[in-house]
Amino acid sequence: MAELANVSVATVSYVLSGRDRPVAAETRQRVLDAARQLGYTPNQAARSLRKRRTQRICLVLSSLGGVPTDERLATDLHEMADARGYSVITLSVYSEARAKAAIDVLRGGIADGALINVVGGHLTHDLLAGLAATGLPMVVMSNESGLEGCDVVRTPETEASAEAVEHLLEQGRRRIAFLAHRHELHRDRPAGRLLGYTTALDRHGVSERIITSGADDRVSAYQTAADLLRSPDRPDAIFAASDRAAISAIWAARDAGLRVPDDVAIIGAGNIDEGLITNPQLSTIGPLRHDYTDVARLLFDRLQAEEALPGREIVRAWTFLRRGSS
Amino acid sequence: MAELANVSVATVSYVLSGRDRPVAAETRQRVLDAARQLGYTPNQAARSLRKRRTQRICLVLSSLGGVPTDERLATDLHEMADARGYSVITLSVYSEARAKAAIDVLRGGIADGALINVVGGHLTHDLLAGLAATGLPMVVMSNESGLEGCDVVRTPETEASAEAVEHLLEQGRRRIAFLAHRHELHRDRPAGRLLGYTTALDRHGVSERIITSGADDRVSAYQTAADLLRSPDRPDAIFAASDRAAISAIWAARDAGLRVPDDVAIIGAGNIDEGLITNPQLSTIGPLRHDYTDVARLLFDRLQAEEALPGREIVRAWTFLRRGSS
Repeated sequence: MAELANVSVATVSYVLSGRDRPVAAETRQRVLDAARQLGYTPNQAARSLRKRRTQRICLVLSSLGGVPTDERLATDLHEMADARGYSVITLSVYSEARAKAAIDVLRGGIADGALINVVGGHLTHDLLAGLAATGLPMVVMSNESGLEGCDVVRTPETEASAEAVEHLLEQGRRRIAFLAHRHELHRDRPAGRLLGYTTALDRHGVSERIITSGADDRVSAYQTAADLLRSPDRPDAIFAASDRAAISAIWAARDAGLRVPDDVAIIGAGNIDEGLITNPQLSTIGPLRHDYTDVARLLFDRLQAEEALPGREIVRAWTFLRRGSS
Repeated sequence: MAELANVSVATVSYVLSGRDRPVAAETRQRVLDAARQLGYTPNQAARSLRKRRTQRICLVLSSLGGVPTDERLATDLHEMADARGYSVITLSVYSEARAKAAIDVLRGGIADGALINVVGGHLTHDLLAGLAATGLPMVVMSNESGLEGCDVVRTPETEASAEAVEHLLEQGRRRIAFLAHRHELHRDRPAGRLLGYTTALDRHGVSERIITSGADDRVSAYQTAADLLRSPDRPDAIFAASDRAAISAIWAARDAGLRVPDDVAIIGAGNIDEGLITNPQLSTIGPLRHDYTDVARLLFDRLQAEEALPGREIVRAWTFLRRGSS
């Protein structure tokens, strides 16, 4: 085969074993072409190439930081990568241009596999499907369906969101405001937390909708909540799409001289630890535990598999956790 | 030269132009050796190699997220990279092993240059000096001295920290606690914020030191502050090494029934926007503006320079900002 590809035996060995050794793309292609002619199946070659080419994995996030869930995910992934001798590089995808650039970088072979959190991001189904088709081992955290050739981690938030809002409605609250992430307001139709909010109001025949952005950062959440709570027809409850925003809303309520939850109930989303040190403690929706090792393990399973694995799906349940703020 | 190196003319062109095309390390070395024999200076070759090899830059941080300064730095770097057609990959260095792995990854040519924030990190002077010696365009944010072959961004925090603590002393406060980052407690001798704290106390002849960890995350800061403030000999002031910790301390004080600043003064560090929405507003030390474009520009200057630039130094001043909490 070395003769046919016009390269050294060592190069053939590097290419087909996928060992961590630099081989030019053209050379590699020559070896793979020769391998195919000689009866190696492309799958075998592709599989060995896929393994341990760079000893790096890529974490793709939709933020530049400040999202507690992303931090936990990063921590668990890095820990598992440490134990297995992999490096981790992170890409931040916060725009359409960045999404395309990230796909290019991953197609260029910067890492042996990718864990991609697309929630709120610009990585479209088509971009991800194209990337998965290259055979790159991938785990995608997404609530969209129809992605093949990779593992998918779902976090159905709608039902827990609806439950939280129904809990407010059952207390007799009727002016319930929703503090949204910006990306939730830019979708074609409501999904996730916003859909849970509208669904619960629909079920109870409440027509009033108070929807505003503000969940993306603490300062704008404070300002939005302060404005809402100082208006003459102030809401009697706030459901925020992030715990950080809900915590800011608690401050805004206290600064406006309102009691939480008597005058205004507040519920967040995400179940971050900080919700346990607020006064009152924060009601929230979220996972009972923050542990992403099951998600990280999906990726390492793929990296270590001898054969391409079928796509798997993990569903991470969210529940409504009532505490003092509602 | 192609003949001498036993490679194609195209490959010579790729290697010497540094264009974005994969060439195996051995091949590249053959070309560079031939170039040297034929009278090209190694510098010329190295310089062209250095330029636009990957169109990627690397951001090296010492955290996995949650540090507001890192988020601002990342935002400004990504913005400038967007405008110049570069991708950004991020490496998190939170352990000695990760530090060595990051150096290996950068030596391996994953990016054309690196912006490295080593504050509180495990990237030692020796590791960085070795990396700079490879000719990789580098900007390092560090308060240590003696780093050559790269640009250095300094943030002298000690004097502003001392000023904050002296302001507390001048109010007659004597039991001043310091909430430290863990890494500050593990140094051979005090530096930065901790050094400012001890220096101010020394100047005023105050011998009592109340130093505890807790500045790394909001929840442990709350618990640490709550413990301190409920002890019989509670502090009359808290200087926290991060604004996030100081904000948690404000909550802890309020929950303990103490008035801020009357019963306990609180000062943070970092000057994050969130300090403006706390009640009272947070006194802090930090930069007047959060704008890292000058830092990012240093890196792009290096990437675009025809010749290796001499090492430059930027000093980013910190000041004490008195607000309501002290």
